Amino acid sequence: MCGIVGYIGQKSAQDIVLEGLHSLEYRGYDSAGMAGIMDGQMHVVKEAGKLTALEEALKKHPLDTNMAIGHTRWATHGRPERANAHPHQSADGKIALVHNGIIENYEELRDRYLQGETFTSNTDSEIVAHVIAHFYQGDLLEAVRRTLKEVRGSYALAIISADEPDTMVICRMNSPLVLGVGDKEMLVASGVPALLKYTRECIYLENGDLAKLTTSGYDIVDLDGNPCQREMVHIDWEDQSAEKEGYDHYMMKEIHEQPETFRRVMTGRLHEDAVTFKEFTLTDEQIQNWQHIDIVACGTAYHSGLVGKSILEETLQLPVNVEVASEFRYRNPRLDAHSLVILISQSGETADTLEALREAKQRGATTIAITNVVGSAISREADQVLYLWAGPEISVASTKAYTAMLIALYLLAFYLGDRAGRFNLADHKDLLEALAKLPDQAESLLTEAKKEEIRQHSQALIDADHLFYIGRGSDWAVAQEGALKIKEISYIHAEAYAAGELKHGTLALVTDGTPFVAIALQEKTFEKTLSNVNEVVARKGRVLCLLKEGHDKISDDLDKRIFIPDCLDMVAPILAAIPLQLLAYYTAEARGCDIDQPRNLAKSVTVE
Amino acid sequence: MCGIVGYIGQKSAQDIVLEGLHSLEYRGYDSAGMAGIMDGQMHVVKEAGKLTALEEALKKHPLDTNMAIGHTRWATHGRPERANAHPHQSADGKIALVHNGIIENYEELRDRYLQGETFTSNTDSEIVAHVIAHFYQGDLLEAVRRTLKEVRGSYALAIISADEPDTMVICRMNSPLVLGVGDKEMLVASGVPALLKYTRECIYLENGDLAKLTTSGYDIVDLDGNPCQREMVHIDWEDQSAEKEGYDHYMMKEIHEQPETFRRVMTGRLHEDAVTFKEFTLTDEQIQNWQHIDIVACGTAYHSGLVGKSILEETLQLPVNVEVASEFRYRNPRLDAHSLVILISQSGETADTLEALREAKQRGATTIAITNVVGSAISREADQVLYLWAGPEISVASTKAYTAMLIALYLLAFYLGDRAGRFNLADHKDLLEALAKLPDQAESLLTEAKKEEIRQHSQALIDADHLFYIGRGSDWAVAQEGALKIKEISYIHAEAYAAGELKHGTLALVTDGTPFVAIALQEKTFEKTLSNVNEVVARKGRVLCLLKEGHDKISDDLDKRIFIPDCLDMVAPILAAIPLQLLAYYTAEARGCDIDQPRNLAKSVTVE
Repeated sequence: MCGIVGYIGQKSAQDIVLEGLHSLEYRGYDSAGMAGIMDGQMHVVKEAGKLTALEEALKKHPLDTNMAIGHTRWATHGRPERANAHPHQSADGKIALVHNGIIENYEELRDRYLQGETFTSNTDSEIVAHVIAHFYQGDLLEAVRRTLKEVRGSYALAIISADEPDTMVICRMNSPLVLGVGDKEMLVASGVPALLKYTRECIYLENGDLAKLTTSGYDIVDLDGNPCQREMVHIDWEDQSAEKEGYDHYMMKEIHEQPETFRRVMTGRLHEDAVTFKEFTLTDEQIQNWQHIDIVACGTAYHSGLVGKSILEETLQLPVNVEVASEFRYRNPRLDAHSLVILISQSGETADTLEALREAKQRGATTIAITNVVGSAISREADQVLYLWAGPEISVASTKAYTAMLIALYLLAFYLGDRAGRFNLADHKDLLEALAKLPDQAESLLTEAKKEEIRQHSQALIDADHLFYIGRGSDWAVAQEGALKIKEISYIHAEAYAAGELKHGTLALVTDGTPFVAIALQEKTFEKTLSNVNEVVARKGRVLCLLKEGHDKISDDLDKRIFIPDCLDMVAPILAAIPLQLLAYYTAEARGCDIDQPRNLAKSVTVE
Repeated sequence: MCGIVGYIGQKSAQDIVLEGLHSLEYRGYDSAGMAGIMDGQMHVVKEAGKLTALEEALKKHPLDTNMAIGHTRWATHGRPERANAHPHQSADGKIALVHNGIIENYEELRDRYLQGETFTSNTDSEIVAHVIAHFYQGDLLEAVRRTLKEVRGSYALAIISADEPDTMVICRMNSPLVLGVGDKEMLVASGVPALLKYTRECIYLENGDLAKLTTSGYDIVDLDGNPCQREMVHIDWEDQSAEKEGYDHYMMKEIHEQPETFRRVMTGRLHEDAVTFKEFTLTDEQIQNWQHIDIVACGTAYHSGLVGKSILEETLQLPVNVEVASEFRYRNPRLDAHSLVILISQSGETADTLEALREAKQRGATTIAITNVVGSAISREADQVLYLWAGPEISVASTKAYTAMLIALYLLAFYLGDRAGRFNLADHKDLLEALAKLPDQAESLLTEAKKEEIRQHSQALIDADHLFYIGRGSDWAVAQEGALKIKEISYIHAEAYAAGELKHGTLALVTDGTPFVAIALQEKTFEKTLSNVNEVVARKGRVLCLLKEGHDKISDDLDKRIFIPDCLDMVAPILAAIPLQLLAYYTAEARGCDIDQPRNLAKSVTVE
């Protein structure tokens, strides 16, 4: 995920900003840049590649200033190359900015505000600099405020203008930005690690906040220009946990990033009565021509495909086959110009998935990649790419990338079904609303109380050698991902079963106290799953049930239960992932496992 | 499976034969009958239903004779009703016989030898009585011998003629028949339990043997009339193990029945350059009209479907989806008149599979049932039925029914592909030959030496809590069934993995000594699977490999290996099943588990 660092004060801004960017390096990036004002002129230095490239460039062209903004970019819109690196500037070069997030309506803004200027990048960020210049009349804060009134999307921005060399303006909406208040110096960054060396007094900006920074202080206003008061927070994290933003492990940090991730993956795509993918170049004819869909992936991504299958079958009215990539590529799959193959890989580098993609292309299938890494091998080779925009995932056990994959698949299913003329989205606004609600619902699953409740449940699992997850339909897919998660990080041998298959063998393993996790979120199979739960209970197995709040059929006999918020059955798998991630996390923590780096596993499986 | 009992001696033949039939009841049956000669006339008493019905009928019509033949029938050709019960008679009524097995060329025999007579049954057995009558010229043995020269198929027969009231003729080919030699009495039966009360001196007839029995003795000849000597065997089994034919458990008996089962399921269906299913009423048009195939089953039957998928996809050039019945029926599957749904169930009563069948029919799909039980609910309701003819399976853990399902699916795939015009069988004689070789190859896997070798390997597993089976493609399907088998009866938590998926999570569970069984029988994925084996070994896991004899790529590093005979990759899953069944068996035995009746499981899952 991109990193923002800004400094205004008495010291060398270049050194401090560089240091801050280094402290955010763990997040991954593919280009970097910095801007400062010297002699009334804006100077921008940027390079593709690592920070060493930027450092080399700064040696040739030092920014000798006490105010600078810097950025490390992790490509989303536009390839990872120098022109797309931040800072971006207005046409006259006077305004420079760094941006994290996505500007949804950048095309609309371009059409409205661009007057003959050409873009130097193909990012969505550059337009913001142009619009600010359009509104600039000597007051940068006001120009930014008026600009933001026009902008839809998510952003964290730091902006400077050559006409106001002692002022920096920052603002945020659904992208993190934290202000560090020092002694006659102010820092701003997208993550706390960049600030800690200089100050531990921070202000977390809220959505819609704008701030004007000077050496001597800061003023915060809202989008209407009204002053705001924000609490100052003292950060007492150890330095080494700063990258984890105070969490003990990246996994917990990434679990917590899910509400924001949900917003990001839907940004610019989910609308009140439509879904759009501006990045796609598919024709209606192409879409209508498909007769069969394969979803090909590995591990967690494969589990996301299992959930996606039913939605795609419904919206496109086509049979969907979900297959493990290492199986698919050796099976001589039946593929031709009537086939759509969807490849899912967080890293975009998974070897088997990449080979499956090549095989599919060779046989004439249309390929759509769903990945988190811009410029990854899979993204480069697929016909169409849907980026997750989930930000770097450091923990080996995938959390936010998995739930982002689910949302991406839902959006894709709606989009393709609608364009194929087989699923009129305007008739299914309830589904779109259900997606829009997810970020807030996810937040309700991440409160301290909820986490403590799940931690308590995990205590019953910490001595288990075996654990079974059961469910039916999409609950079965949820069970499979739940079992994988706990297996990966706690080393408990967990296995997922289609609940209806228990009687065909696995029930033999159930004795006094055998632990089960049952997923019962789908209305149409709820009672059947419950009867499977009773079969287990009758043999003295212990069952923890994952249920939907307010479901009036829930039996009072179930003494162990975790609830997710009431939601449409369709989106339940997305919310269900969160408590199961937490259950795995707390179980692994209690067992003293290396949560972020489980033994024998690698984050990206680039060998076959 | 049908039971045959015959008696000739000084005592009441009716009582002894009835007693013998009772001792074979455990095999299952649906009708029963008996024949004897009184006053130069053949008398046949038979009834549908249980032996009590026959007993009631015999009270009204006693057979007061010292020679009788009796039969309990387990329907294969023709429904379980009185007319189809044995004994069957020639048109003049003088010759009566009881038959186990299948007469392949019964239609041809009927056309050639039937002169105006009509059949009273719709069995394949009745024709044999007619042909014997055709050849009869005062010597029953000779008439039978000449008849058998014309017959193709499998049989165990006991035949009597009203014209020779002191002679019984028996013969066998690929169906068991044992002769009991008593003191001035001779008994014959399809299973030893029927004899033990009267004699423990037995002769196992060999294929092609005919014997003429009288009160005072027996003469055995071959099909050319040459006298044969057969060894007399003393049976010292406990009575309670007699039903298991000397094996400790039904499961081991049924494992050993596989070579015979293989012959039976192919009888009349597999030919040198063709596969036929006389029972099917499908038109070429119907077959060519299918666009999509679903295979729906549970448990072990589901695993057979996983193997069948790839063959069907190849021969019919259609996408095949294999799905657990309890999932399929709740998924709102896309089915219409272009769909073929294959339902697989040993018992034909599996509740979820039956409901899936009804759902499929309602939506207009063609349905083909593969089942072992004639007259079962699924066989009654499916459009087409393919019977396994595997005989009753008593052990809860399926063995011979599973391998019979595999062969049935292969035959079906060849047959449908050929009829659809997409797979010319005449060009694939090698595949048909590979099937024909299976019974002998299966026998080579059941020698005492081979069993002991596998028992030795099982010793490494008996203390395991966890066990992983891995493979790719159809080896993965084999792995899934292998894992289920050992899980069911030994209660070890065994789990099967697509070998290529290990790195995506499960590898985290591997530590020093974690046991694996790797299936590496498919040429095209052999090296990839071996590299997965090495990943496990590198983490100190222990791997037992199942390999194909003579495979020149086999690494010498693999110190633990079990070999199956060299065979085409396609049929390897069938042979591979046998050592994996034995591995499960010996492991469970060493762990002291109740092999035939594992806890919590039922043979036929008739609830959802």
